[in-house]
Amino acid sequence: MWIQTNFNLRPQPRGFHLVTDEIVASLPDLAKFEVGLLHLFLQHTSASLTINENADPAVRADFERWVRQAVPDDAPYFRHVTEGRDDMPAHVKSSLFGCSLTIPVRQGELALGTWQGIWLCEHRERGGARSVVATLQGEPRR
Amino acid sequence: MWIQTNFNLRPQPRGFHLVTDEIVASLPDLAKFEVGLLHLFLQHTSASLTINENADPAVRADFERWVRQAVPDDAPYFRHVTEGRDDMPAHVKSSLFGCSLTIPVRQGELALGTWQGIWLCEHRERGGARSVVATLQGEPRR
Amino acid sequence: MWIQTNFNLRPQPRGFHLVTDEIVASLPDLAKFEVGLLHLFLQHTSASLTINENADPAVRADFERWVRQAVPDDAPYFRHVTEGRDDMPAHVKSSLFGCSLTIPVRQGELALGTWQGIWLCEHRERGGARSVVATLQGEPRR
Repeated sequence: MWIQTNFNLRPQPRGFHLVTDEIVASLPDLAKFEVGLLHLFLQHTSASLTINENADPAVRADFERWVRQAVPDDAPYFRHVTEGRDDMPAHVKSSLFGCSLTIPVRQGELALGTWQGIWLCEHRERGGARSVVATLQGEPRR
Repeated sequence: MWIQTNFNLRPQPRGFHLVTDEIVASLPDLAKFEVGLLHLFLQHTSASLTINENADPAVRADFERWVRQAVPDDAPYFRHVTEGRDDMPAHVKSSLFGCSLTIPVRQGELALGTWQGIWLCEHRERGGARSVVATLQGEPRR
Repeated sequence: MWIQTNFNLRPQPRGFHLVTDEIVASLPDLAKFEVGLLHLFLQHTSASLTINENADPAVRADFERWVRQAVPDDAPYFRHVTEGRDDMPAHVKSSLFGCSLTIPVRQGELALGTWQGIWLCEHRERGGARSVVATLQGEPRR
């Protein structure tokens, strides 16, 4: 069984954001699968999806602090600067964390670990709504 | 055909570890697939799975040296420090390398390149056993 | 429906290269799928596949400049140096960006965003042709 849908994640400020609930709410068909996989694909080159800690907001703030020094806004070697000082670093970060995720599905739910959540990594100051292609596949619930 | 199982990877010290054989030994059902995909999903936020060189242990030691300077234990900007100085860097590294892999399956085996192996990247000093959800899907062997 | 094939990406100099057209031309079977997923797997440990901006070549050149300072060729802590000063950094970069991609398929085409393209990240000075295992799965076009 295959179900493929599009939805938007709502606009977020620059930083790392826990969006597990928003994603699950966009996928009512998840409940139809006994075993399978969910593939999430962000159709953008300046944001990412990743899986990380779902509890302490300080973890997400620390990610933003780390990534700002690892990929600095004002690196003197960047040439692609016409779209803003946050644009080229956003492209690098998009590939560092990746624009897609594959998550196991079991008994109609995501088989995440206790401390895992899905994060939208917004690398632009004003990224706007972010478009996701979600592909569910697997065996229907009995 | 879908087969989804859970297994644990045995505890490893902080560093990068070749675990191809341990994973294949945990997946006897791999032999049943003519063509397909194996999805491995680590249910943790302070360890990673990656694919890299399967021969020289110095490559894995060099990874640890590189990542310790790229994501330092004592970065002054980290606020999430109550769980130990290796905790917040472990979260960052978990997302840098990612917690899941998808590997092609052919004639009952993983279609890895000659020099490729599966690595467990243990980012904590004492991470303990690591839980994996393995999802096999594809066409049964003839 | 499952279709798994092998093909080579032609040799590229060290750097980041837009290869969407080369990959799609290697996959005529893509047109047979109504909905599904394409999995691309590079059988190497010193190159990567990623998705990023498909328009301005300066973005790809900026990636190379960024990654050369993030993973320097002459890092004094690298011990695995017998295969050349570009070898060990290439291994690290291979895992940073990853050796595989999963991309949604819709109506016989890749469901990429407007600005997205597939990049081959060649981390060696002379990497040669790069072998890819492509796995297509999904529902056949009606």
